[in-house]
Amino acid sequence: MHTPSLSSAAGQFPQKGSLILDDHLLTGVSLPAMVLHQTVIEHNIAWMQRFADRHHARLAPHGKTTMMPALFSRQIEAGAWGITLATATQCAAAFAHGIKRLLMANQLIGQANMALIARMIENGLDFYCTVDHADNVRVLNEFFAASGQQLQVLIELGVPGGRCGVRDSSELATLVEAIRQAPALRLAGIEGYEGMIGGDHALEDVRAYGQRLVETVRHLHDSGALAVERPIVTASGSKWFDLIAEAFDQAELREHYTPVLRPGCYVTHDHRLYREAMEAVSERHPALEGALEPALEVFAQVQSLPEPGLAIVAMGKRDISCDPDLPMALRLYRDGRCVREVTDWQVFHIMDQHTFLRVPDHADIRIEDVIAFGASHPCLTFDKWRQGLWVDEKLSVTAVAPTFF
Amino acid sequence: MHTPSLSSAAGQFPQKGSLILDDHLLTGVSLPAMVLHQTVIEHNIAWMQRFADRHHARLAPHGKTTMMPALFSRQIEAGAWGITLATATQCAAAFAHGIKRLLMANQLIGQANMALIARMIENGLDFYCTVDHADNVRVLNEFFAASGQQLQVLIELGVPGGRCGVRDSSELATLVEAIRQAPALRLAGIEGYEGMIGGDHALEDVRAYGQRLVETVRHLHDSGALAVERPIVTASGSKWFDLIAEAFDQAELREHYTPVLRPGCYVTHDHRLYREAMEAVSERHPALEGALEPALEVFAQVQSLPEPGLAIVAMGKRDISCDPDLPMALRLYRDGRCVREVTDWQVFHIMDQHTFLRVPDHADIRIEDVIAFGASHPCLTFDKWRQGLWVDEKLSVTAVAPTFF
Repeated sequence: MHTPSLSSAAGQFPQKGSLILDDHLLTGVSLPAMVLHQTVIEHNIAWMQRFADRHHARLAPHGKTTMMPALFSRQIEAGAWGITLATATQCAAAFAHGIKRLLMANQLIGQANMALIARMIENGLDFYCTVDHADNVRVLNEFFAASGQQLQVLIELGVPGGRCGVRDSSELATLVEAIRQAPALRLAGIEGYEGMIGGDHALEDVRAYGQRLVETVRHLHDSGALAVERPIVTASGSKWFDLIAEAFDQAELREHYTPVLRPGCYVTHDHRLYREAMEAVSERHPALEGALEPALEVFAQVQSLPEPGLAIVAMGKRDISCDPDLPMALRLYRDGRCVREVTDWQVFHIMDQHTFLRVPDHADIRIEDVIAFGASHPCLTFDKWRQGLWVDEKLSVTAVAPTFF
Repeated sequence: MHTPSLSSAAGQFPQKGSLILDDHLLTGVSLPAMVLHQTVIEHNIAWMQRFADRHHARLAPHGKTTMMPALFSRQIEAGAWGITLATATQCAAAFAHGIKRLLMANQLIGQANMALIARMIENGLDFYCTVDHADNVRVLNEFFAASGQQLQVLIELGVPGGRCGVRDSSELATLVEAIRQAPALRLAGIEGYEGMIGGDHALEDVRAYGQRLVETVRHLHDSGALAVERPIVTASGSKWFDLIAEAFDQAELREHYTPVLRPGCYVTHDHRLYREAMEAVSERHPALEGALEPALEVFAQVQSLPEPGLAIVAMGKRDISCDPDLPMALRLYRDGRCVREVTDWQVFHIMDQHTFLRVPDHADIRIEDVIAFGASHPCLTFDKWRQGLWVDEKLSVTAVAPTFF
């Protein structure tokens, strides 16, 4: 596996989380810094690829989580079929970094965004996006007919009260007919996102939705609506990937279709939201070997101890996800060494540039101490940073990997 | 006033909010895009400078709001005394763009961050940071003594239950003594932040806090603790800047001190949080001429109309502030023209990349329509973007201004 260059994110002046004095996280770096534990990342990438393989599904990890092409490359090298993204400019960043197959699990809207995609297709990109409305089909057809290209589209199947996607079979039929009359579009399969499903019967509803996706792609195939040899059926976020994988794991799909899973957050996992989701996956599958592990942390320093029991940390909403949970203190470092775990210290408030930490009145904590924090929802930590520091088990920085939000 | 170059943010490939087809926001740009209305920005910059001038205070706008050096330059050109920032790397970005006086309204922590600041001081930066603890004083003194420099510091005065800052006169005396014994440090004044004050008596408490800052700097001056000729007394966010300005507007301060106001959000203002704060300022001062106006919007497109009354917009948490309020739909554009105001359409949910808009069941809304959105808290919109588009009144893009978070 290649390692991104130490200098690849170097700009004209140091950014937050830059190497300043040396390449050890605790002695040489401008904190706060976003930190990726390299061995854990490698474990997670291998784990999820193995999971997809065992369910006879392709993996197109959602890259919008990290927007870190160095991770996309590792996911592809580990066997991923492609990378999923959410917007045309995200696709531009991935394609510029060598990713040749992109599934945009979203509608392609706007002439400028279409122009971006057209340019990439011309340069060899294997691209798919979703459609859910005849008006969108008409605009896409006009644009790509004018550029003399064919655009591969997937029909998005939604759920009532959900996000995008056709809601019922009558809307589906209308959309299929619209695509049939759009020569610049090529219907390549069905897309869905089960993450919009909630409520008391969520597990059953997710299973039923996975089955509905399978039945729909089969129905379209049988009716001759699909213009590709091995049509795609794709779904799955990072919470219920196991249920979608099971719905897709059928002999017929394996042989005649391309089932694609699209979890994104698994690559770094997290310290609560997806940790709990993983615990539920493991409970549903007691025989499952191993589990995802958290790989993403933000390291920051105590800047003030203004009252007994209160520490102010130089890290804020602009550095770490605080949605849906406040950050979690994990470990305390002093003088370049880990002192101990501090999971009993509680973040109780966060501002743009400051975090408020409740500690015992006589806690052993000092100004300049370094604390490693975990969080829920890696997507909302990654987008706070223009670079992440990959570290080894000794916290030496092995790579500075840029992000492209 | 100089205008940042149209190509100044151009990277190796297009980022979100880039000019793709032409330089008109509605026809040539990859949406969503962060948009700054240039004439409104100019109005706000002039308005706040005039306000500070009339209260005989210097203005050091908080730059962490925007981290857009093109705005810093305009603020300085309009008369600002310096720029306020929150971290060493923010200071590095501002200094690299020509800002020569920086007030870091925060503690300077960590050897790497100190090294960054030391390098800038060596290169001519007039720099101030805050201290609130003898341990921090000791570390700073060791570092700057070793580099043969003097560091200008302000004592931060906090409030009980607040953020950083000494809480009482006994802590203050201890800190003053610690600084006296730190030859590499030069005590230049007093700093505070009234934004931590809340509750039923907030207005009185803010006024009393402003007065306490003034009395403290006077006390330190009289006792010979201050090592500069015109000591600094500084406070004010963007909510109660008028109350702090009044507390500082005294003949004695005018003559012998340097009173500094530090609002940041005023430069773009916003559509709820600071709009309401401005309304309160205007109510407190009926004779005040004019007011701040909102200058920051995010333009995004309708991507799906999946159910009657529901529109999904291609914009998410990663594009616009949703804290403390959800974004607000302002105006609808179609075929390059403004159709009408849509302030009755309600954003009711937002995800990473999608916004959920409730519209009347038979609303005139179409896929590809463009909507301008406002938000609360400009800090948390700016940090979602690597560039902002400055537009004129016809929505032509006059500049692409990079941000440096």
